Amino acid sequence: MRSVVTGAAGFIGSNLVDRLLEAKHEVVGVDNLSTGHRRFLERALEHPGFTFREEDLFDPRALDGVLGGVDHVFHLAANADVREGLRHPRKDLEQNTIVTWNVLEAMRHAGVKRITFTSTGSVYGEAPVIPTPELCPFPVQTSLYGASKLAAEGLISAYAEGYGMRATVLRLVSVLGQRYTHGHVFDFVHQLRSNPESIHVLGDGKQRKSYLHISDFVGAILHLARLERSGAVEIYNVGTDEHVTVDESLDVICDELNVKPRRTYAGGDRGWVGDNPFIFLDCTKLRATRWAPRVSIREGVRLTVSFLLEHPWVFDVHRKKS
Amino acid sequence: MRSVVTGAAGFIGSNLVDRLLEAKHEVVGVDNLSTGHRRFLERALEHPGFTFREEDLFDPRALDGVLGGVDHVFHLAANADVREGLRHPRKDLEQNTIVTWNVLEAMRHAGVKRITFTSTGSVYGEAPVIPTPELCPFPVQTSLYGASKLAAEGLISAYAEGYGMRATVLRLVSVLGQRYTHGHVFDFVHQLRSNPESIHVLGDGKQRKSYLHISDFVGAILHLARLERSGAVEIYNVGTDEHVTVDESLDVICDELNVKPRRTYAGGDRGWVGDNPFIFLDCTKLRATRWAPRVSIREGVRLTVSFLLEHPWVFDVHRKKS
Repeated sequence: MRSVVTGAAGFIGSNLVDRLLEAKHEVVGVDNLSTGHRRFLERALEHPGFTFREEDLFDPRALDGVLGGVDHVFHLAANADVREGLRHPRKDLEQNTIVTWNVLEAMRHAGVKRITFTSTGSVYGEAPVIPTPELCPFPVQTSLYGASKLAAEGLISAYAEGYGMRATVLRLVSVLGQRYTHGHVFDFVHQLRSNPESIHVLGDGKQRKSYLHISDFVGAILHLARLERSGAVEIYNVGTDEHVTVDESLDVICDELNVKPRRTYAGGDRGWVGDNPFIFLDCTKLRATRWAPRVSIREGVRLTVSFLLEHPWVFDVHRKKS
Repeated sequence: MRSVVTGAAGFIGSNLVDRLLEAKHEVVGVDNLSTGHRRFLERALEHPGFTFREEDLFDPRALDGVLGGVDHVFHLAANADVREGLRHPRKDLEQNTIVTWNVLEAMRHAGVKRITFTSTGSVYGEAPVIPTPELCPFPVQTSLYGASKLAAEGLISAYAEGYGMRATVLRLVSVLGQRYTHGHVFDFVHQLRSNPESIHVLGDGKQRKSYLHISDFVGAILHLARLERSGAVEIYNVGTDEHVTVDESLDVICDELNVKPRRTYAGGDRGWVGDNPFIFLDCTKLRATRWAPRVSIREGVRLTVSFLLEHPWVFDVHRKKS
């Protein structure tokens, strides 16, 4: 199997690359290194089955010469900065929607037929049904991130139906684990490293969150890529049946760091405009394919804190970039 | 009221401009004249309340200086060529999705808060529920046109929620009437004018279609623009409770033209790849606002044939362009 992973130097991308190489895929990783890190690919770069291409997929020619003989494109490249969408609305449109279109066009021209796309539970906006099934009533978009990912899903569906591709669309909850570089756990650990005495929480701390561990998510991607299926487009929610509050995950973090900070709260039921108080997905469809997550949320948070403590450079890099 | 109509020289746009001027709006019409016609604006151009701007909205600066003091943008500009999407996939992305983003950005910078957007029943793909309500289960896109319009809807929702705009999204069935320039009725009349002896029908003629008359649609736009409402985004299906088969609408056309052609059929249950065998919308939500269509489908087809016969130049222009 010859696979291309876009966003290969990112959190999820680099973990997927490692796993595909273990599974004997030949892998071409593509990344513009805007938020990804060459260091995340250290292991992959030593593997003979791996090639890295530093390309910006917003350039429609970025994949020229890359897709020959490729069986499967795992399209993970994206602007994943959900919170800051309203500050730079062009980024979501360009990096999530137009880039996806560029990837689809390149696949069409090269005759590549299989695509896996990492979408988001944010496409459900403020879902009227929780846990939210894939066939939830048609939602209103509440974030540019969700809107741009939904747009990408639509393009992928239309290409799959129109040009005979097969697409797997994965609507994700938040993922954490090794190489995780943004989100609640990152922010909390970052704050507590510089000041273990007090911590400021966006919202009221009661926001519920459902986190999947990276090893489970990458496992789900490979599992679904191998699955026999008939339809042009299959959409799966990918999450766990568990959830925690922001406060509970903070408990685990404090425990792991062995600190007891005073907590202050910004208040309100959400962290920022467009934040969704609770993304919790109904994963019955995925479970029916005989897949289940193995890592609990608490264990996932713990593993993430360990990773961050062992790789403190990610704080420097990501604080500088943001 | 000061309004901007994008796609002002098109079929729906030019009819909306006329109606807004009658309702004493000051109107700026914007169109790149790629498929629209200056002739459709003949009456408007004589009106002191009307200004025309020939601009291509794919240029992000097209609306510079246009939106000052504007209360409401009616965003109708689009690539409406549903059938040919697979031949030039870039067109839908650019003209429907990116152009909508450009309009939203221009509105944000100018502080314009109201937008009405003409979307399409095609966003439901092959809907699992017919008649299809706005809260139909989340669909898979089957055409680039539908995908690009859904993407635009998502952007509009996210902008409305994020930047405090109010948006009205109208999911349309096919519209016909004066200045109609593409679709079944156009094709049939065109064929029968050159050869009244025989007619070739795409599909099996049993495809059901629901057509709204332009006067009803433009009436619905104005009715909804005046409505008191609270939410940032309101989505309405706009159609009739009637439907006809392609064969039945051909009966009306033949009757109006006074011809009795031999009919041949391409066969199959749809006209082209991505064609939807039946778009029929549940318009309960719109009806609850005390709006109802006045023109029956048969009457609408009849009025359309009359328009085409009185304005044969549209055949020359639209055949040349396509």
